[in-house]
Amino acid sequence: MMYRILVTNDDGIFASGIKAAAEGVKGLGEVIVVAPAGQKSGVGRSISVFEPLRYAQVNLNGTCQDGVKAFSVTGTPTDSVIIGIFAIMKGELPDLVVSGINVGENISTDTVTTSGTIGAALEAASYGIPSIAASIQAVDQGDKFDFHLEDKHSFKVASKVVKRFASKVLEKGLPEGVDVLNINVPAGATEDTEVVIVRLARKIFRTSVQERFDPRGRPYYWIDGDLVCHDAEGTDVQALYQDKKITVTPLTLDSTSKIDLNGIRCLI
Amino acid sequence: MMYRILVTNDDGIFASGIKAAAEGVKGLGEVIVVAPAGQKSGVGRSISVFEPLRYAQVNLNGTCQDGVKAFSVTGTPTDSVIIGIFAIMKGELPDLVVSGINVGENISTDTVTTSGTIGAALEAASYGIPSIAASIQAVDQGDKFDFHLEDKHSFKVASKVVKRFASKVLEKGLPEGVDVLNINVPAGATEDTEVVIVRLARKIFRTSVQERFDPRGRPYYWIDGDLVCHDAEGTDVQALYQDKKITVTPLTLDSTSKIDLNGIRCLI
Repeated sequence: MMYRILVTNDDGIFASGIKAAAEGVKGLGEVIVVAPAGQKSGVGRSISVFEPLRYAQVNLNGTCQDGVKAFSVTGTPTDSVIIGIFAIMKGELPDLVVSGINVGENISTDTVTTSGTIGAALEAASYGIPSIAASIQAVDQGDKFDFHLEDKHSFKVASKVVKRFASKVLEKGLPEGVDVLNINVPAGATEDTEVVIVRLARKIFRTSVQERFDPRGRPYYWIDGDLVCHDAEGTDVQALYQDKKITVTPLTLDSTSKIDLNGIRCLI
Repeated sequence: MMYRILVTNDDGIFASGIKAAAEGVKGLGEVIVVAPAGQKSGVGRSISVFEPLRYAQVNLNGTCQDGVKAFSVTGTPTDSVIIGIFAIMKGELPDLVVSGINVGENISTDTVTTSGTIGAALEAASYGIPSIAASIQAVDQGDKFDFHLEDKHSFKVASKVVKRFASKVLEKGLPEGVDVLNINVPAGATEDTEVVIVRLARKIFRTSVQERFDPRGRPYYWIDGDLVCHDAEGTDVQALYQDKKITVTPLTLDSTSKIDLNGIRCLI
């Protein structure tokens, strides 16, 4: 049986990471790349309900162009999944969606709820498609703007990890209750770096704003946030930052609180 | 003690619903309204990391202007919470954040992961602030664009429900494990409509795209999706659509799968 794999991301169709993702899975089946035309980090599962969308076939430079069709979409990562499935694939669901490889780790509840990489994977998961999101740790946040990072980062290791999980997920599916596998690869990872299964840490950012003044003397604000690097045992933050391990966190679409619903009747 | 309550939304600072929310809570403490300058539905917990933001004080027309300061922000609902707390309130956390009242129900995992109303509430919750998201059922999806809906919708009932929950949450806090209370009020609700606590349904949309052609003959696509109105017992979709009850769903920021993490080691 020939598998069909949709590859997307939030760094944009011309980012190095999406080529690494496509390279990783192209031996496993037919690979179709559908991703935003430009950088869409931080847009979560944003969906364009007020503007129409367009797509265009593009040539991906580099090694993965052979046999891999690629399309850019004018919207968000989630829009790209929707256009990929319902316009380009005419409604035929792929067997797997891979989102990434993102430059910048997606760990803790702070990032997975705002990440376009995770957003696209959640969109795919909402149709019952097994999904994998993959990211590499960015030591320099400025790397987000650099599309020529092939040599700088751990894409090679991440690409192999994606291939390994993609292969297993295609064969076995995801366990009941798991919608997305969220994989993060630390900076400097090698093929011997251990893989651990961990839960999301609660926080990773100490959010702040920086006030600046434009040439007319009027204030504007940049959202900023130092990393909070410490966290409890068993979390992705600790495993990636302190133990420098490759982390896998199973995510669910269902954000209903994990409490007895009867326990909050006192609030009514 | 004087409570401080931050009110935000995703329909924009001039939407009718945010006035209804501010009206609802203004007897409970100092109310500060900080919301996007325009319509930002569907942007989830999007955060602006590549563009700076500005804010401006505005006059809200209507009854709630007395004693209520209001500010428009050039970004998303999440940006508005960040600017509200870290620029306008100078980092002093409010005691409660209310997001809404949204025109359009936010029920099922499909909507809560894409809703800007919920996104803003999650952002607030990430700082440990108890948060309430409130929405009314929109029978006509076109209502999203209409800012003059005071008489048409169930804002009055929703406003009272928000007040009741806000009052209890200010007094008691949210139960452990609950980050956001997600309240939805059905069309036609009255003060006698029953309030029920329910979990998220899995789905609400049957997603599709509509292909159209511009005046130059080139295709473009609208994301579309019929409502899937049936769902299992105990879900928000069933309670709101079939039973026509006011629904309250406790949400968590932590989307780690609710499974034994050891159970997925076979995938490594």
